[in-house]
Amino acid sequence: MPDIIEGRNPVLEALRAGRPINRIILSANVQRHGVIGDIINLAHQNGIPLEYAPEPAIQKISVSPANQGIIAYAAMKGYISLNELLSISRDKKEPALYCVLDGIEDPQNLGAILRTADATGFHGVVIRSRRAVGLTPVVAKVSAGAIEYVPVARVVNIAQTLEVLKKSGVWTIGIDASGKQQYTQIDYKLPVAIIIGGEGEGISDLVKKRCDSLVKIPMKGEITSLNASVAAAVVMYEAYRQRSL
Amino acid sequence: MPDIIEGRNPVLEALRAGRPINRIILSANVQRHGVIGDIINLAHQNGIPLEYAPEPAIQKISVSPANQGIIAYAAMKGYISLNELLSISRDKKEPALYCVLDGIEDPQNLGAILRTADATGFHGVVIRSRRAVGLTPVVAKVSAGAIEYVPVARVVNIAQTLEVLKKSGVWTIGIDASGKQQYTQIDYKLPVAIIIGGEGEGISDLVKKRCDSLVKIPMKGEITSLNASVAAAVVMYEAYRQRSL
Repeated sequence: MPDIIEGRNPVLEALRAGRPINRIILSANVQRHGVIGDIINLAHQNGIPLEYAPEPAIQKISVSPANQGIIAYAAMKGYISLNELLSISRDKKEPALYCVLDGIEDPQNLGAILRTADATGFHGVVIRSRRAVGLTPVVAKVSAGAIEYVPVARVVNIAQTLEVLKKSGVWTIGIDASGKQQYTQIDYKLPVAIIIGGEGEGISDLVKKRCDSLVKIPMKGEITSLNASVAAAVVMYEAYRQRSL
Repeated sequence: MPDIIEGRNPVLEALRAGRPINRIILSANVQRHGVIGDIINLAHQNGIPLEYAPEPAIQKISVSPANQGIIAYAAMKGYISLNELLSISRDKKEPALYCVLDGIEDPQNLGAILRTADATGFHGVVIRSRRAVGLTPVVAKVSAGAIEYVPVARVVNIAQTLEVLKKSGVWTIGIDASGKQQYTQIDYKLPVAIIIGGEGEGISDLVKKRCDSLVKIPMKGEITSLNASVAAAVVMYEAYRQRSL
């Protein structure tokens, strides 16, 4: 199963077959009707990000000459919806325990976070569809198999996702250096979602405002931030430690 | 300052100037006397690993045609000796807190570990000279600057290093799935060194036998191991949490 699908009909067939797709790149020159029009509609219906690139860029990333101005990147595993994600903790009759990633771009970090999520009993992970890495082959490899066990929902808007979580009774906790409380002061036996920001900018301001609480991970050295997968792991293991008491 | 030094005299001069070198690669064809003989002696005196490679391999990794069968990789920062490392906690009048890495090969992991070591007040890190990554440019970048603040000792033999630590009154704690106790059951206010194994094999058997204790990080999912920098961070933050109480 190739992870890069090129050409109009192969991409359309992959979409029709319900294959999970991380993103689709279209040549800026391509006519947006006919098969391409169908592809654009199906991509919108399935929340798959579409990007337009200049023709020479398409030729550069293409692996075959028969790309016809369209390239799709297959995901290594399907995404589930936010509602499906929320049903997992309900079905398990456990207080919800989710990890929301607001723009993780490094596949090493996403892979490591999935691995830690599996180890600490998190019910699932939410990722962002734009400017974020999806379930790529590198993520699958780094996750050491965890990609098969940890359900991942992909959403367009993290701020709206937090509203949905809150309406379901989930307490949303952003991990951010501006937090007043420390991460150890939270009661993780309650239904909670922890929010981890991207490598460069951390949690975006819009998302930060929607969090019920912001908590910090103390740091006593010279460096002002941790690696994103490390920050996630420190909080995830604190949650696991508390739930095991 | 280039991080690859090629040719007999440039490498000899770098060694004489005391520039930190991660490793030296020599063509298997090169005559081991004269300048090369001096280089080999200086490398041995300074504990710098020497590797021999077939001539075509040297040409492949070389960045200039003037390599003369010898290539040295400069370190981004100097290493300190084990004795210097041990003096740090003494000088600070704090119970020792060290992290010993038994064969970390991925620069992403070493960089992230240095970052977490800085954040959690570890006094220093010990790395292995063979089959392990040194203080390379990628490690420097991933460490987000922590490479400048965290002292690193490079040793030939980790098992012997544990004996030196133990003689200095440091309790050596291996992080390993076979551990009977959990990592949270250790008193990190005592002088301790935590030992983290490499990505592939974990802590080597010889080293495991020298540890005063083996402790495990509990995992409740399907995956049987964590990313090495995540495992290090979970234990480092538990040590920091306890020392802050």
